[in-house]
Amino acid sequence: MAMRVDLNADAGESYGRWTLGDDARLLPLVTSINAACGFHAGDPATMRRTIRLAREHGLALGAHPAYPDLAGFGRRELRASATEIADLVTYQLGALAAFCAAEQVPLQHVKPHGALYVRVARDAEAADAVAAAIRAVDPTLALVYPAGDAADALERRSGIRVAREAYVDLDTGDDGIVVVEPSPRRRDPAEVAQRALDAVRGRIATVGGGAIETRVDTICIHGDAPGAVDNVNEIRRRFAAEDVEPRPLADVLR
Amino acid sequence: MAMRVDLNADAGESYGRWTLGDDARLLPLVTSINAACGFHAGDPATMRRTIRLAREHGLALGAHPAYPDLAGFGRRELRASATEIADLVTYQLGALAAFCAAEQVPLQHVKPHGALYVRVARDAEAADAVAAAIRAVDPTLALVYPAGDAADALERRSGIRVAREAYVDLDTGDDGIVVVEPSPRRRDPAEVAQRALDAVRGRIATVGGGAIETRVDTICIHGDAPGAVDNVNEIRRRFAAEDVEPRPLADVLR
Amino acid sequence: MAMRVDLNADAGESYGRWTLGDDARLLPLVTSINAACGFHAGDPATMRRTIRLAREHGLALGAHPAYPDLAGFGRRELRASATEIADLVTYQLGALAAFCAAEQVPLQHVKPHGALYVRVARDAEAADAVAAAIRAVDPTLALVYPAGDAADALERRSGIRVAREAYVDLDTGDDGIVVVEPSPRRRDPAEVAQRALDAVRGRIATVGGGAIETRVDTICIHGDAPGAVDNVNEIRRRFAAEDVEPRPLADVLR
Amino acid sequence: MAMRVDLNADAGESYGRWTLGDDARLLPLVTSINAACGFHAGDPATMRRTIRLAREHGLALGAHPAYPDLAGFGRRELRASATEIADLVTYQLGALAAFCAAEQVPLQHVKPHGALYVRVARDAEAADAVAAAIRAVDPTLALVYPAGDAADALERRSGIRVAREAYVDLDTGDDGIVVVEPSPRRRDPAEVAQRALDAVRGRIATVGGGAIETRVDTICIHGDAPGAVDNVNEIRRRFAAEDVEPRPLADVLR
Repeated sequence: MAMRVDLNADAGESYGRWTLGDDARLLPLVTSINAACGFHAGDPATMRRTIRLAREHGLALGAHPAYPDLAGFGRRELRASATEIADLVTYQLGALAAFCAAEQVPLQHVKPHGALYVRVARDAEAADAVAAAIRAVDPTLALVYPAGDAADALERRSGIRVAREAYVDLDTGDDGIVVVEPSPRRRDPAEVAQRALDAVRGRIATVGGGAIETRVDTICIHGDAPGAVDNVNEIRRRFAAEDVEPRPLADVLR
Repeated sequence: MAMRVDLNADAGESYGRWTLGDDARLLPLVTSINAACGFHAGDPATMRRTIRLAREHGLALGAHPAYPDLAGFGRRELRASATEIADLVTYQLGALAAFCAAEQVPLQHVKPHGALYVRVARDAEAADAVAAAIRAVDPTLALVYPAGDAADALERRSGIRVAREAYVDLDTGDDGIVVVEPSPRRRDPAEVAQRALDAVRGRIATVGGGAIETRVDTICIHGDAPGAVDNVNEIRRRFAAEDVEPRPLADVLR
Repeated sequence: MAMRVDLNADAGESYGRWTLGDDARLLPLVTSINAACGFHAGDPATMRRTIRLAREHGLALGAHPAYPDLAGFGRRELRASATEIADLVTYQLGALAAFCAAEQVPLQHVKPHGALYVRVARDAEAADAVAAAIRAVDPTLALVYPAGDAADALERRSGIRVAREAYVDLDTGDDGIVVVEPSPRRRDPAEVAQRALDAVRGRIATVGGGAIETRVDTICIHGDAPGAVDNVNEIRRRFAAEDVEPRPLADVLR
Repeated sequence: MAMRVDLNADAGESYGRWTLGDDARLLPLVTSINAACGFHAGDPATMRRTIRLAREHGLALGAHPAYPDLAGFGRRELRASATEIADLVTYQLGALAAFCAAEQVPLQHVKPHGALYVRVARDAEAADAVAAAIRAVDPTLALVYPAGDAADALERRSGIRVAREAYVDLDTGDDGIVVVEPSPRRRDPAEVAQRALDAVRGRIATVGGGAIETRVDTICIHGDAPGAVDNVNEIRRRFAAEDVEPRPLADVLR
């Protein structure tokens, strides 16, 4: 039987008069999207439009909550307490869920955005707070989290499903956490695709020359990286050749 | 059988470091509260706290969405389009609903706040947009709207329940819409209670000397008005004497 | 001697991660720019960058204050009081002035943005509030205002200089106020240039077939309109042929 | 000759509908105030009102810029870059300066608020960025900074005046930085006054039992601490007895 893996991308990161990303071009190539919920991007009108795009393209939908930081696009760490983080995730998750209900699109997962993603990857108390918030609102939702031992431990502690994620168009630090770049750069599609294949097979190379052995459920694709479409096309070509099937998280985690 | 009417009050209008209102003092006296949802007041922590207060006091809970205007407390008209209004109501309603789910408190109604309340009272297109937004998210929720012919028409058009509301500590204009005062003033509790009784019996006096004959389901109590507690106490005393029973909207609309 | 007129364009309307407009392409073609001040666009980093661009291109600089409305890009009327408007203009003007001081670029004028521009054009009390705010902060600054009788009256009342403005890539209503379009459309450059020439000569045609006879000090160019660069180039070609000299407001009003 | 020291307090930390602090009661007791500039508190109307209060009470005025964080009252560290910090200080400083110009009240100093105060105390690059921002806008302004060696070094590097500050109603850590408490508690006025006297004489006791020997130019009074007025009154009584004269920073630094 084919191996399965989700391909996820951020979407809906426009805001009012400002547009960002080329959602329409990237969306046909992934299986799940993470929709901004208003705190780093994604005004209400954008949220509705993004959900409709997901429906049109048959994509699974996730919430992409962030620190409240429009000017910084949610990429700056804010020392909110674990309780505050739980509350802001609850708020944003609910806001998106209402549009999902209205548009009759199911919600599949939650993936923290930017600095909040890095925070929960590094701070177990914050991760637990997010997981508890998700479980309290809707325990069927999966939490997307960096693949590795911490993800395994979080799943055991939290009682919700944790979707293990790998990055292939960015490097992974020796601590298993993606190395965020101020502005993404063009990568060799062949290298990116090889990383994706390695990840599906349970291996993520780290910058220090080591590797993390882990289950990987979803691979993140950065729509704002130059060459993003080329990267995904090459990933899909390799996947097809190696009998790896891109499927939404809900199917991968089943 | 006793007549029934809901007594509603705004709550949860603190924001971060700033507190407002004396929720703890007023809440035991009403039957429903309208919880701010973050756009005019009510940061996420306040929203959760307010829902817990509702649960402790056995109060029914409504969402109190507003224009995005913290500095103006949602009291300034913003010429958002009907579509934008639908989207911002959906967003705020969902945010509150997530806390309700987490805290296992049911959501009963939606009452637009401040300038948005006046907007939907005057602008049928905006009212329809709000009603449609509510219906799409959760058709069991009632929409609180000024009592009168427009409420009847809105209910017929919208297919959701409309809770007819009267104001008794503010005056009602000849157009059936409450006359908002920059800062609320002390009223004679006996007069306020008489207005409440008249309202329950289907009559709202207007500033021009006329009256609106209408069904009234809920009476608004302004917690920030001087003498608010005295007013509600006197209302409750008269209600008890006249066999009017304060009950949450859900019971009144049944 | 050549007639003089200013060509002004909005600039600095990016925000954090989001970019807008093609400032670098349009800026060489105008004589003054209006820099967003953070309320509808223009985060602090963008403000500084915009001032530096003005300095590099030798452009005169104005503040472009707006209602606080990032999601609506300041294009939605907000019923702020005249006092509130004075305060928000003071705030934004000061914020920009600090960057001007730091970058040693003089400030030349204030032009209200979007819905605030339309508000002051229609509401004399609001216009007076803005003029008084400017005078109190820096009486040397000119206020950009729709050309016509109201501008003349405002200048007499306010005691500050009023720069009369005409729009040539949008239509002007019979009330002398520009007709804002949801999204600007391509215009015939020849027609736009003819309007510009008419304006310099004191005549603005209105949609109803009439015309306003008035002095015009500055002509607005919309950088986000399709064909904006073609329009300005054609305006400049006609101006050169007809001995009209584009100059910053400070020179025009001298 | 009498020793001189400034007594500073935060002020203007209301926001729109929300009031905070008892500015009117504390202001007669201090010599300088730090006015919030809109990012953590202090909407434009509040800023103008605060400046007028300063004028009425004959108080010297400072800007109190913060991270952009209304919900967190500027008390949460935000990992903004040094450049971003310079820009947000410039922005807020300018906004306040415009009101000062309009109200003809001179600006005396800049004191970063909350988490930004702690950031610059710990992060020399951020401190240099703030100092450079101030110098570029107005080199006559003093920067309020924790008393100690770092203040001496900052002044040497920056070329602007640094006002050395001590806290007497909060404890000082062994690193010379005030230990912020989630909610301030009541202190013994006699103890607070003794600390103030010690500070004026160049000695700040730290929590670990040590002391910092340093010049102190200004003492911070927390208006929101219980017993704040009692504390200041006792400080003033001791100062009078010991021939210490409370004077605005401008006089102390002369």
